[in-house]
Amino acid sequence: MPEKRKIALFDTTLRDGGQTRGVHFSVEDKIKLTQELDEMGFEYIEGGWPGSNPKDIKFFQTMKTIPLKYAKLTSFSSTRLKETDPAKDAILAELLKAETSVFTIFGKTWDMHVYESLNTTLEENLAMIHSTISYLKPRGDEVVYDAEHFFDGYRANPEYAIKTIQAAADAGADWIVLCDTNGGSLPRQIQEAVSAAKAAVDKKLGIHTHDDGDLSLANTIAAVELGCTMVQGTINGLGERCGNANLCSAIGALSLKLDYETLKAEKIARLTYLSHLVSELSNKPHQDSLPYVGERAFTHKGGIHVSAIRKNPKLYEHIPPELVGNARYIPVSDQAGKSNILEKARELGMKVEDAHAKSIVAKVKELEASGYHFEGADASFELLTDMVTERRKEYFTVHGFRIHSWENDNGEIWSEATIKVSVPGNQNWQHTVGEGAGPVEAMDRALHKALEVFYPQLADIRLTDFKVRILDEEAGTKAITRVLITSTDGKRHWGTVGVSENIIEASWRALTESIEYKLKKDEEENNGK
Amino acid sequence: MPEKRKIALFDTTLRDGGQTRGVHFSVEDKIKLTQELDEMGFEYIEGGWPGSNPKDIKFFQTMKTIPLKYAKLTSFSSTRLKETDPAKDAILAELLKAETSVFTIFGKTWDMHVYESLNTTLEENLAMIHSTISYLKPRGDEVVYDAEHFFDGYRANPEYAIKTIQAAADAGADWIVLCDTNGGSLPRQIQEAVSAAKAAVDKKLGIHTHDDGDLSLANTIAAVELGCTMVQGTINGLGERCGNANLCSAIGALSLKLDYETLKAEKIARLTYLSHLVSELSNKPHQDSLPYVGERAFTHKGGIHVSAIRKNPKLYEHIPPELVGNARYIPVSDQAGKSNILEKARELGMKVEDAHAKSIVAKVKELEASGYHFEGADASFELLTDMVTERRKEYFTVHGFRIHSWENDNGEIWSEATIKVSVPGNQNWQHTVGEGAGPVEAMDRALHKALEVFYPQLADIRLTDFKVRILDEEAGTKAITRVLITSTDGKRHWGTVGVSENIIEASWRALTESIEYKLKKDEEENNGK
Repeated sequence: MPEKRKIALFDTTLRDGGQTRGVHFSVEDKIKLTQELDEMGFEYIEGGWPGSNPKDIKFFQTMKTIPLKYAKLTSFSSTRLKETDPAKDAILAELLKAETSVFTIFGKTWDMHVYESLNTTLEENLAMIHSTISYLKPRGDEVVYDAEHFFDGYRANPEYAIKTIQAAADAGADWIVLCDTNGGSLPRQIQEAVSAAKAAVDKKLGIHTHDDGDLSLANTIAAVELGCTMVQGTINGLGERCGNANLCSAIGALSLKLDYETLKAEKIARLTYLSHLVSELSNKPHQDSLPYVGERAFTHKGGIHVSAIRKNPKLYEHIPPELVGNARYIPVSDQAGKSNILEKARELGMKVEDAHAKSIVAKVKELEASGYHFEGADASFELLTDMVTERRKEYFTVHGFRIHSWENDNGEIWSEATIKVSVPGNQNWQHTVGEGAGPVEAMDRALHKALEVFYPQLADIRLTDFKVRILDEEAGTKAITRVLITSTDGKRHWGTVGVSENIIEASWRALTESIEYKLKKDEEENNGK
Repeated sequence: MPEKRKIALFDTTLRDGGQTRGVHFSVEDKIKLTQELDEMGFEYIEGGWPGSNPKDIKFFQTMKTIPLKYAKLTSFSSTRLKETDPAKDAILAELLKAETSVFTIFGKTWDMHVYESLNTTLEENLAMIHSTISYLKPRGDEVVYDAEHFFDGYRANPEYAIKTIQAAADAGADWIVLCDTNGGSLPRQIQEAVSAAKAAVDKKLGIHTHDDGDLSLANTIAAVELGCTMVQGTINGLGERCGNANLCSAIGALSLKLDYETLKAEKIARLTYLSHLVSELSNKPHQDSLPYVGERAFTHKGGIHVSAIRKNPKLYEHIPPELVGNARYIPVSDQAGKSNILEKARELGMKVEDAHAKSIVAKVKELEASGYHFEGADASFELLTDMVTERRKEYFTVHGFRIHSWENDNGEIWSEATIKVSVPGNQNWQHTVGEGAGPVEAMDRALHKALEVFYPQLADIRLTDFKVRILDEEAGTKAITRVLITSTDGKRHWGTVGVSENIIEASWRALTESIEYKLKKDEEENNGK
């Protein structure tokens, strides 16, 4: 078997990914992610732009004391200012202070950018590229040159675009990276320009794409197939505008479908974990439709798909999910049959006998007919199963509640809830009141106030998501309401569902089941189950 | 200039898109979206699978009474059951009852699927394809044949795969659509198989891709460039697992970058609106990184990008955002969308002077920052415009309200609302009480009881849709709530929106605006406007 062609992965989640609207990595986040990427086997990690960002300066300072096993950390900067000696350029001075072994420098390829953005001549831009790289090369191990707007520039003025990368090559750059900065190129245009670059410079080539045209991966593959051996991108496709090429997808395509070597197989099996970690660090919900690593990537909803998948997953899956550390997910839904339920229970680590499965199916169908939906509400499904199998335990009893909402003197609408609660074997009933900006918040507070007297660990619960869906919309305000709540206690995440004609009742059911589930799981853990 | 090659757009948001985990379109949603797609100029609209879903049966029944201007509505089904006469196949019988002019039928291409999923012989599968299409062809205008798993099937057994589409062609199918059902093919594999299909059948070809490999658009383009003239996909790339090809991206690439004709330019300029509408109807947050139509698609965060964009947007934008109805967003100081507002007002038949447009933009931006969204809430937008232009009339004043919710003796949760209302120039205040299964219903009843004394025509209002979306879900029960109400009086349909931390207040705002709008429109009609 011929050896697989090695692709150097260049991760810029910390630099280009940090440009995503709404994403703000702390120095601690950056360190944690750098260590994780190193562990995974990424070859280059672009940490930031010390010349533009004080946070990045601090990051690079800290990183001097943290050794990496495998990856090379690189700092990033533009070419020197026009008509300036590189040795006197303040931004390059900051770059050197970062003391990384690799410097990544971007320069202008597109003549329009030279004129309108730099306000200088084409010749001066070539000099800026050449002198910056010549200055840096002896001061580190490697210089990566990012040819910004290479593809747009090549379309506008091919001769000049080629001259810019030749200047970088002549000055000693180790890598010439061709960037589709505006993200609008088509694969065919990528192919043409990469071929021209290959003919013009005798250097290792890289590719850097963006997703504005929904083609970042196709463009990456097109470039790699023509000989680019470095792929730049970000985890989850974070980045300016529509984002950079998603390295999770690139790794999937290059290693699992094409004949290239990226990460080791056992590291690729951690890709879904890495993707979730980046979502957490960037404080964004994990996009469920992400190829390979999304929560929906191997979720089968259609009845025909579900029954086929059970016979042979290959029938509706392009790769086995475990290769990327993802998992198959079959939601419990209208089409639920017995085997569906048994499989779901197995997935949740529950023991359900065949005899019970039929009663559970019947109960699920009955509830679904009234508007329930257990997709995303595994905890409610587990409690339902416990009920049918007569294993459900009563942790508390609610003896009625009242909620008032009114407009206060400032014209604000405010809510107050009162509640009476007891726990089995305890005569000490709790009668509490909570208030909030809405009825559900008031209810939640009153309930916690009452129950934390008995179960202090409930203070750890935090609602992470609260979704309301009105069903049978024909009926207007009288329609059925479904409330889906996602909770966490810092360790676990779980979903519960409540359905009623009354939004308050629906919320109430989902809230109390969320609490019940937490108590059940804590007890199981204490019993060493 | 040579004529552009025409591509038939086949939208399956309502069918394949409805397979998205967590998406449940109501019949009303489906009708609204069908009308919108028709208005935009999509050639085919796949409405659902009548044989598998009672909701779809109801949709097709209703659509018999709603004429479409441009689009052809198509129903969807599988080939007949094995060893069954098509005339006796119950699923096909349901298909015929839908009475659409176009039938879309999917059949098996991949031998493994024939054996493991259908449990039949390769010959019987060919017969199933042939006899189903022969049976349907004389019963409608067109038959579209979806060759499921065409690309996987072609890789596994090319000879047999080709035989299946030849069977469809021989039986009289008008279109042969090549489907990458598992979404894992690479552009190169698409090219190879499309070329083989083209050589084997003399029919119009279509392409249907999925995004499991992050290549759905690249695969679509590859097929179109080889001669496929139908593109199937969904708005926003909804669909099983990672979703179908996103038609918004396909339209962008084919019409704005390549030499194909899809929608008219003025309709492409409504693409961002359509994308938001689909998110609202599917009750999903609008994915901000979507190419072309996402809120981040033309958002510039990096300092260098922002300053360059101010000189010339082309420097960091692959297309002008207005081509797709999107807008540039620069977080520090925003460029106003004055012309957008003027256009919207024009669309609603309102007269807005240029001088007012700026104040309206400012108000809309302020409200959007607090969670408002006027897509799907034209009536609220119209009232807002009236307010800014000082034409908003006061039809009634609410002097406070109270809502109580409690568990009654039967364990049911019940709500009661009291309200005090006056109308201008009338000393006779109304103080009323309403009850309902939930606080919103109670509120709605009390309000109607009070206002119908003055405006009897309000008895005609019926809420047809009531959607609740929690924004900033991280904040749990304290998050911002957006309520979107659709109302009808039998003649008109209108949407209103309310936003608040309190679900009751948000509902209240949307409810009162719905009533106000009805009063305004009735008055305009009486004044012969």
